[in-house]
Amino acid sequence: MSVSEFSLIERYFAAHRFQRSDVALGIGDDCALLLPPTGQQLATTVDTLVSGVHFFADADPEGVGHKALAVNLSDLAAMGATPAWATLALTLPQANEQWLAAFCRGMFALADRHGVQLIGGDTTHGPITVITLQAHGFVPPGWALRRDGAKPGDGLYVTGTPGDAGLALAAAFGKATVAASHENYIRARLERPEPRIAEGLALRGVASAAIDVSDGLAQDLGHILERSRVGARLEVERLPLSPALAASLDREAAVVTALTGGDDYELCFAVPPERISQLEGSVAKWSCRHTRIGVITAKPGLQLARANGSAFDLEQRGYEHFG
Amino acid sequence: MSVSEFSLIERYFAAHRFQRSDVALGIGDDCALLLPPTGQQLATTVDTLVSGVHFFADADPEGVGHKALAVNLSDLAAMGATPAWATLALTLPQANEQWLAAFCRGMFALADRHGVQLIGGDTTHGPITVITLQAHGFVPPGWALRRDGAKPGDGLYVTGTPGDAGLALAAAFGKATVAASHENYIRARLERPEPRIAEGLALRGVASAAIDVSDGLAQDLGHILERSRVGARLEVERLPLSPALAASLDREAAVVTALTGGDDYELCFAVPPERISQLEGSVAKWSCRHTRIGVITAKPGLQLARANGSAFDLEQRGYEHFG
Repeated sequence: MSVSEFSLIERYFAAHRFQRSDVALGIGDDCALLLPPTGQQLATTVDTLVSGVHFFADADPEGVGHKALAVNLSDLAAMGATPAWATLALTLPQANEQWLAAFCRGMFALADRHGVQLIGGDTTHGPITVITLQAHGFVPPGWALRRDGAKPGDGLYVTGTPGDAGLALAAAFGKATVAASHENYIRARLERPEPRIAEGLALRGVASAAIDVSDGLAQDLGHILERSRVGARLEVERLPLSPALAASLDREAAVVTALTGGDDYELCFAVPPERISQLEGSVAKWSCRHTRIGVITAKPGLQLARANGSAFDLEQRGYEHFG
Repeated sequence: MSVSEFSLIERYFAAHRFQRSDVALGIGDDCALLLPPTGQQLATTVDTLVSGVHFFADADPEGVGHKALAVNLSDLAAMGATPAWATLALTLPQANEQWLAAFCRGMFALADRHGVQLIGGDTTHGPITVITLQAHGFVPPGWALRRDGAKPGDGLYVTGTPGDAGLALAAAFGKATVAASHENYIRARLERPEPRIAEGLALRGVASAAIDVSDGLAQDLGHILERSRVGARLEVERLPLSPALAASLDREAAVVTALTGGDDYELCFAVPPERISQLEGSVAKWSCRHTRIGVITAKPGLQLARANGSAFDLEQRGYEHFG
């Protein structure tokens, strides 16, 4: 790309003039200058989306812009942090104005809804599109939702309906058939995940541990169990399946998808028994459902149990990548 | 890459156990948790290196690791910030342990020298290697070296000897011949740029504007002039040429290379007349030379002048990408 093409790109990002009072200097110098609030911890996360790996090369660029920010805000949500700032490193094969305009629309619409300011970035030329976004937020000391705080006896919960994005991917690869009436819903769940920011904030002081589900519920829950040195018993019949998922796959396949499908960006969290009433008091304001799916155990490992007490064996059902 | 290959990679980064007291939680959760110092501004920058664009695909990985961090630390230096934290987003075609080990050696050696802790990252699979590193540092409010503070009459300076990295690139592409005695020097200047951190800190309260030279001295100085709404008169005979550059090219070509060669990561800065004695008092402790190359003018634009007063015309000398 020529220098002028780069200027064009940079104008796209600098043109969006949302200005937070804690940004002393935004896009356009060697560094951004920020004013972190006194007495708060700074939460920082970074995620990369690679064309052809994390999104289809011909995916709607507005959705790609949304998702690049959403996956990062989801990490802040899982930490119980209030979003504030983002930086964007964008590698592009060419300066396609139409693509860029749509990408910006998707990214800035989500950023504006959560009060996030783009404070800097880098635009480079490369053979494929690679998007690395970094998000920053704030959390009072001691209130962050870490992965390592779960204790035996804590209730195990998940937001929303996991497996929908996995179903959308399976449908895109011709491995599942979805009725036309469910198509828009599952595509939105894959392409426009809604970071559970309000829910993460509500879980401060309530959840003992939390993680966002990006690689599949079973695998991500595994990170909580490992870090907290505990196990969990997950009752597969309790898994909240969306009408789209329940209608598109048989019951067993739907459960496998809910357990292993990635890209959901729901929160999986643990709540100590004495704080469950606090949780139930807060959920009235949530924009998504929450479901108790099991309990944290002293016995290590993840047990997947049916209501009749028998084990649900994921690997027997053809899921290869688990564990 | 499989899950286990990812774990391998993540172990490489988590294994380096340098721990700053202002990092409450480092690699391994949804976010890092940081404790920015009270009363300081947070300076943030991000830069991407793409294989085949910013470094040769077969480049020494130790040098690539060094450079990925160095270009970011150079931005902190140009802002007068003290480095603190970094995140790394790494897209790789495969998990090559030997490459990763060398990359980490280069990156962590430089990080350790500047007290920088790697606090998080993301490792993804993709068809080519793309490295996005983000660095954070601190600067007291009002002390940052911005691009927009240069005033007519300010002296114009540069650190080190610009053009060496440009010469190394020209040699790599067969467009210049470098004597064997200078080869190691110019290769180090291209592959192992030394971020001018101490010099940036020394310029706090001294320089009125600063930038690091990544795209060529003339072009990067142009950013200071544009942002400060001033011009400059740069005396080309004053340009400090390294013995390697002076010996490898004729005088005119060497000057063009010093003005337009990228990847130097030297600092270009302006100093008001009343602070020049302060500058001269501080440079005894610098690890590199500094040279006055001209003066900031009220007349906009960059004038390149010979000692006899005639103009030095870059474009006449075959340089196409300038301006």
